[in-house]
Amino acid sequence: MTNKRVLTGITTTGTPHLGNYVGAIRPAVNASNEPGVDAYLFLADYHALIKCHEPAQVAQSSLEIAACWLASGLNPERAHFYRQSDIPEVTELAWILNCNAAKGLMNRAHAYKAAVQANDESGEDPDFGITMGLFSYPVLMAADILIFNAHEVPVGRDQIQHVEMARDIAQRFNHNFAEVFTLPKAVVGEHVAVLRGLDGRKMSKSYGNTIPLFGTPKQLQKSINKIKTNLLEPGEPKDPDESTVFQIWAAFAGDSERERMRADFVAGIGWGEAKKQLFELVNEELAGPREVYLELMDNPKRVEDILQAGAERLRPQSSALLEQVRDAVGLRRYA
Amino acid sequence: MTNKRVLTGITTTGTPHLGNYVGAIRPAVNASNEPGVDAYLFLADYHALIKCHEPAQVAQSSLEIAACWLASGLNPERAHFYRQSDIPEVTELAWILNCNAAKGLMNRAHAYKAAVQANDESGEDPDFGITMGLFSYPVLMAADILIFNAHEVPVGRDQIQHVEMARDIAQRFNHNFAEVFTLPKAVVGEHVAVLRGLDGRKMSKSYGNTIPLFGTPKQLQKSINKIKTNLLEPGEPKDPDESTVFQIWAAFAGDSERERMRADFVAGIGWGEAKKQLFELVNEELAGPREVYLELMDNPKRVEDILQAGAERLRPQSSALLEQVRDAVGLRRYA
Repeated sequence: MTNKRVLTGITTTGTPHLGNYVGAIRPAVNASNEPGVDAYLFLADYHALIKCHEPAQVAQSSLEIAACWLASGLNPERAHFYRQSDIPEVTELAWILNCNAAKGLMNRAHAYKAAVQANDESGEDPDFGITMGLFSYPVLMAADILIFNAHEVPVGRDQIQHVEMARDIAQRFNHNFAEVFTLPKAVVGEHVAVLRGLDGRKMSKSYGNTIPLFGTPKQLQKSINKIKTNLLEPGEPKDPDESTVFQIWAAFAGDSERERMRADFVAGIGWGEAKKQLFELVNEELAGPREVYLELMDNPKRVEDILQAGAERLRPQSSALLEQVRDAVGLRRYA
Repeated sequence: MTNKRVLTGITTTGTPHLGNYVGAIRPAVNASNEPGVDAYLFLADYHALIKCHEPAQVAQSSLEIAACWLASGLNPERAHFYRQSDIPEVTELAWILNCNAAKGLMNRAHAYKAAVQANDESGEDPDFGITMGLFSYPVLMAADILIFNAHEVPVGRDQIQHVEMARDIAQRFNHNFAEVFTLPKAVVGEHVAVLRGLDGRKMSKSYGNTIPLFGTPKQLQKSINKIKTNLLEPGEPKDPDESTVFQIWAAFAGDSERERMRADFVAGIGWGEAKKQLFELVNEELAGPREVYLELMDNPKRVEDILQAGAERLRPQSSALLEQVRDAVGLRRYA
């Protein structure tokens, strides 16, 4: 039986924080080690160009993210770990899909509609500031998925639509030309952990409330100390389910430690003590990966070699698929 | 001094007819032999996919067109003759340009606007039947031009806008990132010969009034005999400037032969005789090329080898440019 091909794109903007680690990196790394799964994890640097026009930042962020994933236990011997821009078949497929994707479909994409709405609200021309990159992004995403005929694409709710568009485009192609594409399915994690940030809202770079993933232990401690709490004194019972400290604790603790802390909250553990224990717990999990991360960041060439090996291993697959696609649409060599 | 790089795309749909030969093929082949010019002539098969969803036709037409150009005297040792889809850097560049091209720019493209208008008139949704291929076609065309930093792009009036879009996108990129691109210029032929067809209207496949380019001599003769004339008898003076027969004659005759026939028209040459002479003149020019054409159509592999050699010679240039572009936007290898 074929393994299930599960594909995840990682947009290479920003520096991963603790929320990315808990919500995306750790679960994807774990899933990539499951039996029966062929994981495809790629640095979506072509997508990064849509949002980020700072070359130095694009380059730096891509390296940091690659190092983060590797440091977090991704095994590049087992999973396919590669950079989107090292697979030239992706953009070629994107063009061919362009010729089979209705423009009307793109008009309905969330990201585009949100941008248009923002323009409407500020009295601008509907397409003000919108690039063709943003507008045609779902076609590129379809190419990412279809070039390796992924079965499943784990996504957040906001991305379901894009996977469905990929499915729609694939279906149309299969119907019009030849049964080349596997129809991909969006898989939404039932229990995706959305970590809360320092201020209690969802941890997100745009809120400026993040805890850095691979900062120094001191930085980690300082961040954790800043987590917003209420004014209850030591000895006063505290509600664990209302507390960001407890929520982060639960994301790192095993079952028994989680329940122990829950009991400690009810018994009135002081915020200082709870944060001290939280730091120790998180730091314990991150200390090893942090070391690997710093080592990789000091040796970018090692990361590069891993990515090149990943692309090299995949190119026969992407080339073969593109060859089928080209033949199906009539781009054939004369013989 | 650098040679002037002149780039021409040939959409690979349909079979070339006499009007294509006089209006496009012959002048481009002549221009490609001018001193100081580096001609880039490519089979735009990615563009063909926008219009044509018949794989067999895409493949066949692409071969016929390649054979036509070669048979018409294109020297692939001197000119760069290649197939768009053999230069994978084109679609990669197209994606990067997507991220730097305003969607608003595409909204104003003629071909798209014409399609929307047709939908409006028939009461359809504005984007009915419009693919992302049609909509983003000017970005692909920009990539075609910019990947080889062409100085000049000879075009018909309807294509000036697209070259200007390429210029606009290039300018924006140079300004935002690095001076990578030459700004291309549209060049509109002052005296582009628009050959008339059998019914006197512009010769065009869509009017069904064409004269085949490399049919048999018998087919050529039959076609020429069908050219619409008036009812004037032999001996009655005829107006050469009103006559399709004379117009085609003028497109093939040298100066003195043209003036001789003009005089014969005024002196009342019969239509039968004029057509007989026209067939002989056209056939004389086409007989040699026709033989080469049939030979090439019998040996598709030879055409393929020529195209492969063309692409191979150009890949270092397209790769080097793409490398510059990638570096400029931040798609860099870690080292």
